[in-house]
Amino acid sequence: MPEPRDPDWNAKVRRSFAAQSFMAILGARIESLMPGICAIVLPWNSSLLQQNGFLHAGVTASIADSAAGYAAYTLMSPGTEVLTTEFKIHLLAPARGVSFRAQAAVERSGRTLTIVTCDVLAMADDGTESKIALFVGTMMAVKVPAPP
Amino acid sequence: MPEPRDPDWNAKVRRSFAAQSFMAILGARIESLMPGICAIVLPWNSSLLQQNGFLHAGVTASIADSAAGYAAYTLMSPGTEVLTTEFKIHLLAPARGVSFRAQAAVERSGRTLTIVTCDVLAMADDGTESKIALFVGTMMAVKVPAPP
Amino acid sequence: MPEPRDPDWNAKVRRSFAAQSFMAILGARIESLMPGICAIVLPWNSSLLQQNGFLHAGVTASIADSAAGYAAYTLMSPGTEVLTTEFKIHLLAPARGVSFRAQAAVERSGRTLTIVTCDVLAMADDGTESKIALFVGTMMAVKVPAPP
Amino acid sequence: MPEPRDPDWNAKVRRSFAAQSFMAILGARIESLMPGICAIVLPWNSSLLQQNGFLHAGVTASIADSAAGYAAYTLMSPGTEVLTTEFKIHLLAPARGVSFRAQAAVERSGRTLTIVTCDVLAMADDGTESKIALFVGTMMAVKVPAPP
Repeated sequence: MPEPRDPDWNAKVRRSFAAQSFMAILGARIESLMPGICAIVLPWNSSLLQQNGFLHAGVTASIADSAAGYAAYTLMSPGTEVLTTEFKIHLLAPARGVSFRAQAAVERSGRTLTIVTCDVLAMADDGTESKIALFVGTMMAVKVPAPP
Repeated sequence: MPEPRDPDWNAKVRRSFAAQSFMAILGARIESLMPGICAIVLPWNSSLLQQNGFLHAGVTASIADSAAGYAAYTLMSPGTEVLTTEFKIHLLAPARGVSFRAQAAVERSGRTLTIVTCDVLAMADDGTESKIALFVGTMMAVKVPAPP
Repeated sequence: MPEPRDPDWNAKVRRSFAAQSFMAILGARIESLMPGICAIVLPWNSSLLQQNGFLHAGVTASIADSAAGYAAYTLMSPGTEVLTTEFKIHLLAPARGVSFRAQAAVERSGRTLTIVTCDVLAMADDGTESKIALFVGTMMAVKVPAPP
Repeated sequence: MPEPRDPDWNAKVRRSFAAQSFMAILGARIESLMPGICAIVLPWNSSLLQQNGFLHAGVTASIADSAAGYAAYTLMSPGTEVLTTEFKIHLLAPARGVSFRAQAAVERSGRTLTIVTCDVLAMADDGTESKIALFVGTMMAVKVPAPP
């Protein structure tokens, strides 16, 4: 397990996640958090769908992006914020299920850039899980202005 | 302007968009629609933000994905549905503004796969616009089961 | 291990690889081949470098693309050819070493599209290996014209 | 046209390109160079092909990557080198022609990261050109160690 650069890594991620109004609207929550790893769970919800009744690709991308950003943020230095610079997502299968889980893991943690991969799984009502999406993105540490 | 394969192209896109519960939750609407082109507009909304008060990257990706999917769908054959197979998005600048516009244009329309690019612009309260994201994705035409 | 759709999978991949003049120029060869999996090895060569003496990103992408294409091709139906439709590659570390290995594995094999991931490793002269690149791409099965 | 940060931008790009042994092996050359823009031309060559006689996707990616890197490098500060961190490429059509041109333009130039798009065109023997690939990538400025 990689060594966090910031002893406050766990609390700062949870504070930042709590400040994301969009994750609250989606109904997403952090399921697990470790240095370099973050899982976000989203229960199915009828207001998050595309035209065929599957989870909208943008919702799948949203939880993958948040999980990836926070996996990266656990390893970033004190005094920095995390920003997504780019990501790619493959939608492997129609997103249907009672809940969805985005599992992100840091692939490479640099001083400025962090490369993160994220799988998104759908859980069926019988408890079986299948991978519905594959995400790879670049997260950037940006300096927070020092307080005056 | 490319020739639509389906005379119902305009109405079928609008029906499909209206069936996306997620676009309604976001508050997004189709602003313009032409063969191979779709623009979606999203007014700023305090429930769509990330931790720094900018539009969540997942929201930016969501409107870009919908615009790209519908730009592709205008050119698809009758009896097919549109699915996103993959996309990449670059977040070029913090997403702040009074409204956001995703402008998608088909780059190449094949029988099965359609490649679409999409710019996302932010409009400031003085009316100036700036590009905040760049999207390139692959949309797939999938056959709809014939009615029994 | 996935079941090949074509009993000729092994021989057809090797014939196709042998027909790629560019892999011969690079000095690349297939190291291992199984259904859904392909590894290509490339010895270091002073004519494949970028301006700082590392392997050119295009070379890294080339062996990753060939490995990914052939991993996909092992699972494709008889009477089809494989084409790359798109890929993304992350260059994780400077590409230096005595040899390089692209290890591709099929992530999802559909009738038309195959999603493949590929890691590229560099081997140092002491035999240690490290990951230098991460690739995700879409391969397409296209029908070969029937002989007249 | 963006303002170069380094008065030596033109000469430093040409020196760097000349140091890429791989571009020489391919037979590629810089056709035009302006602040934020670079075009690289590659004549057809029987040793650069894939199994169907088209230009190998890796070659297409290689000239796109070099053009993109050098378009970015024209705008980077003195004392830095350019590295590709990631790119995505769409292969839009089979790469056949008497020559190929990668035309890169900077989309956004930051202090650390530069986002670049690149089109690759094929020129037929009757002089007509068609777009065969679409590239979007991230280039990074890395500090060169000061001389001792």
